[in-house]
Amino acid sequence: MPLFEVTAEHRGSEARLGVLHTPHGDVKTPAFVAVATRGTVKALSPDDLLSLGIQVLIGNTYHLYLRPGAETVGALGGLHGFFGWAGPWMTDSGGFQVFSLGAGKVHGVGKIAPIFPGDTRPRAAGGSLVRLTEEGVHFRSVVDGAWVFFSPEEVIRAQRLLGADIILPLDECTSPFHDRAYTEAAMERTHRWAERALRAFEETRGLGPNPGQALFGIVQGGAYEDLRRRSARVIAGMNFSGFAIGGSLGRSKEDMLRVIEWTVGELPKERPRHLLGIGTVEDIVEAVRRGVDAFDCAAPTRMARNGTLLSGQEEGFRLNIKGARFRRDGRPIEEGCDCPTCRRHSRAFLHHLLRSGELSYFRLATLHNLRFMARLMAAIRARIALGKELSLEGVMGDLRG
Amino acid sequence: MPLFEVTAEHRGSEARLGVLHTPHGDVKTPAFVAVATRGTVKALSPDDLLSLGIQVLIGNTYHLYLRPGAETVGALGGLHGFFGWAGPWMTDSGGFQVFSLGAGKVHGVGKIAPIFPGDTRPRAAGGSLVRLTEEGVHFRSVVDGAWVFFSPEEVIRAQRLLGADIILPLDECTSPFHDRAYTEAAMERTHRWAERALRAFEETRGLGPNPGQALFGIVQGGAYEDLRRRSARVIAGMNFSGFAIGGSLGRSKEDMLRVIEWTVGELPKERPRHLLGIGTVEDIVEAVRRGVDAFDCAAPTRMARNGTLLSGQEEGFRLNIKGARFRRDGRPIEEGCDCPTCRRHSRAFLHHLLRSGELSYFRLATLHNLRFMARLMAAIRARIALGKELSLEGVMGDLRG
Repeated sequence: MPLFEVTAEHRGSEARLGVLHTPHGDVKTPAFVAVATRGTVKALSPDDLLSLGIQVLIGNTYHLYLRPGAETVGALGGLHGFFGWAGPWMTDSGGFQVFSLGAGKVHGVGKIAPIFPGDTRPRAAGGSLVRLTEEGVHFRSVVDGAWVFFSPEEVIRAQRLLGADIILPLDECTSPFHDRAYTEAAMERTHRWAERALRAFEETRGLGPNPGQALFGIVQGGAYEDLRRRSARVIAGMNFSGFAIGGSLGRSKEDMLRVIEWTVGELPKERPRHLLGIGTVEDIVEAVRRGVDAFDCAAPTRMARNGTLLSGQEEGFRLNIKGARFRRDGRPIEEGCDCPTCRRHSRAFLHHLLRSGELSYFRLATLHNLRFMARLMAAIRARIALGKELSLEGVMGDLRG
Repeated sequence: MPLFEVTAEHRGSEARLGVLHTPHGDVKTPAFVAVATRGTVKALSPDDLLSLGIQVLIGNTYHLYLRPGAETVGALGGLHGFFGWAGPWMTDSGGFQVFSLGAGKVHGVGKIAPIFPGDTRPRAAGGSLVRLTEEGVHFRSVVDGAWVFFSPEEVIRAQRLLGADIILPLDECTSPFHDRAYTEAAMERTHRWAERALRAFEETRGLGPNPGQALFGIVQGGAYEDLRRRSARVIAGMNFSGFAIGGSLGRSKEDMLRVIEWTVGELPKERPRHLLGIGTVEDIVEAVRRGVDAFDCAAPTRMARNGTLLSGQEEGFRLNIKGARFRRDGRPIEEGCDCPTCRRHSRAFLHHLLRSGELSYFRLATLHNLRFMARLMAAIRARIALGKELSLEGVMGDLRG
């Protein structure tokens, strides 16, 4: 069976329905991939995730390499055995940490950053925890401060031991503040690393607990059209099972959508496309329209922990449960939501838990936000299947029932 | 139906089997009451508790009074409605905070404290957050530093609004470092407060969401035999539905067991006896032998959060999951344990979660420790029913299967 099947194409957009066939089960696309950086979705257990309709998790090679170590995870059955989530897993390569602990830290920015006239970066206080060479990346460990070295080959070996179903090659995620020359040089290096990763992937066949792993390629090129198109063509020309869109996405949401259009335009239709580290409700709907099949983003779970709960019934699709107006509000977070939190608990209760610093808050809030993401993706898939317009208003109307 | 029925007496000890009939369900005794200070067991949801065999929770009037407020809880259906635990509830009165924020803080001690020759208390740096008068207690709020006043009457009114099934009168929990004269004066005041609480309980009938509430009396008297016996007789002579053993329990476990014997010796057999704030596995077995029917203690849940997991198979009935020896230990916390954590996860996984500061650790660890307490109490009840010896070794042997 091929890894990916496109089962339907949307009328009126580049969106499509598909199925990812992994050794640990199928994933219906478009899909939201829940972030499990250290092998576990923060505050939830694997049983919780099953009950939410979450299909697939993404762990992080950098963090798991430092603790508990790829060897340890491998010895205990890989991510599937060690962490108790027996469904599909992805792992990111550490390429995002090249950015978040390096240029992103020095520049004080994320992957999308507005740049105003006179803005002079680098400006942030933080120094880089990263040293890049042609050979690979030297990282300062966030656990104990020691330097560790990630080569494209070592990152593949580690991911063989971790055993995720879909893995990614080491890349360099550039910053919106990198100029064209740097972005191009970094992209070329990422392409050379991609070839080394593919060779290492072949050479490590048989290593680790999951012989059916698939390797996706990562497209770079920043927010420069010619670079993005060139990177997409180069990576599409290699023997990857699917593609991820990485790197800087420019100065605005509009830049991001253009980057997606350029990239998707150069990728083969029959292989899956994953947008790394995005996004919000609005981003996801717009990216699906442009042909993206999967997303991972820490925002829904991180927002939950900070008090921001998702709802199709609120302005901006969210409410902050810390607000005093919820102190005696006996309604659920979102009327009609079928998550375990909304079925049992009031806004007043969650408000009290968060204000009191009660640990149970984090789980109940995370359950809701991830269930919201699962419902959002199901509504998007239904609209694609029915040939309905893929607009934010339409999807939200479906969620409100 | 009476509140309490003794259904069997143990051969060879003062232990008995019983049933507490509350408006929100029955509680089989001897029972462990899970601590839900702010209305929720830390890190768990009500659904979690149901799955563990936990029968009854205890909230704290002082903490709930400050946040979210008794009126707020009352307006949202009382503890049962607001917190989603529809089973039996108890509430403590704030009397323990008279100690923990007052003399206990100044003396730097708990309810049991060894006193060595030359030990000169008060010695701790912390000043008292409590001012006691005949009228009641002025507390410094731990939430915002404001002074709040608790009279015996106000504490009953607040507990009417909170709506627990079993409530307690305001008392003064004394310190092991209080002398006999102080302990006696405090005890006499607690007796006067008990009478005021009983009057207030009658005068507030109809207030709050739970008309079937029962009021227990609290026995004081420190570790002085004559005071304890006198307090038990005085409190037993009042119209309380059951009894709690409060206050200082002396300098050692032996002192504590003597205090229990003196107190239980003066209490009527047909009413239930609750030992406040105790205990460990060892304490519970010994106190049950001496006729105690119920216990509440924060230790099992607090220990879980600190990495100490209960097991009948370990020395001291516990292991510290932080230990490096668990890094690659694929076994469950306790072989044969039927809790959700042991059924799915390894020691290595829990070790990783705790070392990584992952929030899901706290829930998985708490689930195990509370299930251990529920299994412990079930094993104790089975031994009483079968007329087997109530020894620590015997009970632990039963737990090991």
